Amino acid sequence: MSQRIAFIGTGIMGLPMAGHLLSKHFEVVIHSRTRSKAIALEQRGAKWADSPADATRDADVVCICVTDTPDVERVLVGAGGVIESAKPGTIVIDHSTISPIATQSLATRLAARGLVLLDAPLSGGDVGARNGTLSIMVGGEKTALESVMMILQSYGKTITHCGGPGAGQFTKLVNQILVTTNLLAVCEALKFARAAGLDLNTTLAATGGGAAASWQLLNLGPKIAAGDYKPGFMIDLLMKDLRILNESAAVLNVPIPLHELVQSFFLKAQSTGHGRDGTQAVFDAVAGDD
Amino acid sequence: MSQRIAFIGTGIMGLPMAGHLLSKHFEVVIHSRTRSKAIALEQRGAKWADSPADATRDADVVCICVTDTPDVERVLVGAGGVIESAKPGTIVIDHSTISPIATQSLATRLAARGLVLLDAPLSGGDVGARNGTLSIMVGGEKTALESVMMILQSYGKTITHCGGPGAGQFTKLVNQILVTTNLLAVCEALKFARAAGLDLNTTLAATGGGAAASWQLLNLGPKIAAGDYKPGFMIDLLMKDLRILNESAAVLNVPIPLHELVQSFFLKAQSTGHGRDGTQAVFDAVAGDD
Repeated sequence: MSQRIAFIGTGIMGLPMAGHLLSKHFEVVIHSRTRSKAIALEQRGAKWADSPADATRDADVVCICVTDTPDVERVLVGAGGVIESAKPGTIVIDHSTISPIATQSLATRLAARGLVLLDAPLSGGDVGARNGTLSIMVGGEKTALESVMMILQSYGKTITHCGGPGAGQFTKLVNQILVTTNLLAVCEALKFARAAGLDLNTTLAATGGGAAASWQLLNLGPKIAAGDYKPGFMIDLLMKDLRILNESAAVLNVPIPLHELVQSFFLKAQSTGHGRDGTQAVFDAVAGDD
Repeated sequence: MSQRIAFIGTGIMGLPMAGHLLSKHFEVVIHSRTRSKAIALEQRGAKWADSPADATRDADVVCICVTDTPDVERVLVGAGGVIESAKPGTIVIDHSTISPIATQSLATRLAARGLVLLDAPLSGGDVGARNGTLSIMVGGEKTALESVMMILQSYGKTITHCGGPGAGQFTKLVNQILVTTNLLAVCEALKFARAAGLDLNTTLAATGGGAAASWQLLNLGPKIAAGDYKPGFMIDLLMKDLRILNESAAVLNVPIPLHELVQSFFLKAQSTGHGRDGTQAVFDAVAGDD
């Protein structure tokens, strides 16, 4: 029998993801802070619930797609939260990017009630959500992951079991170290190129085919050269991930000095009015154009 | 009529490159510091000359593939150098990675004698040289580049005209900023992953398909995870490029703080016995394993 799904959080990511579940003929009950955002899903057959607890009552699987650690905590263990109504054996899939440490503690609290938490943060952005090509980094019980694979495959292309509880969140942070440092490399390289009098697009063409290549260079390099700072992925949203990264590094007692320097440029970009620009706007902070 | 080529420097890069020219039936005269290294080329029809000047006497084009700035200066304007015998109109292609500032000054000195200097540093390593798939970043007169395109295509796959004299060298430095920073991103990301208890190969698989991807991640990530530090490209050789980068940034008066931090880890790796290891051995310096 098809799994009944509660989907909580129908924002820029959750809305298209829940839509993919409806396309696959899953029975979906939705809840979101703002009901108006979910109307399109109701029109397609999703049922509305007034709280996470109401959404969860008859669900086999609960998908969560909200913003930050406190949001997930509210949805799961707050008043009217999932924990109030979920039946034992319910699998909770948290697609939000939140603290891995808090995730581990939530997984323990849920396990005490017979619930399974999978942390399953996403990479691929709103484009990936719309196209159903997200990368999903999953932490938690492997057997639980296997039992929800059909759900994840509705919107995910690369689904990796990364380890126990929190491992998905930790892997997402690894991903963000790579993304931000590679982007800063592009910025500093183009800053140097400009100072040397080089044409930026020619420089991108000359360096993009070999050992210097990166997704950031190929995709954001041309935008930087063109002064196009439209998001993409907004600096304001990235800063939340970087805060979680810092907190986690502190808990793990692992120095990440390169990232600290990288982050300082994003902070500078945010504080000079680029918060709602795409991440590539950090070039202005690197190149001293602010 | 086919161009007659003097090829100076038949080391790990020059040897296979000159070999490709012989395969294309160019007439090649060779000179190298160590004649024994060039014997294989002599056996294939290359003529030996006892000095750069002797090699150059009947040449239309002079290719240089040596190590550092003073080596190129010696070959071009030292005793027995190219400048002593080259006829006006000779095109000199310098494939070495050397100072762009010195390159600009050499181009001016050569121009005063009616000679054209193209700086044409390489990317792709000894594998690219053997397979004839090098990336070549060219600075200098575009018409001169066009007239030697057949030569460069013998061993180059991507040939980019980057601008006037020195632009090829500047672009190579941009390339090295990207290469080294992307590699350090991999190292710090894997350091964090290890501290978080993640499996490194799983982490590489989960992050290698999207916005975090880079040539360094895909090619050197697995070597780091396996503790395989065989070169590839040796840290000792990279340090020369980084020194030139620092000198050039100082002349251009352009701060590259991220690169300074990146370089400090390579210096640490070199000073702890990794000089003759591949660049990925910098992981030990980043992860504190030394």
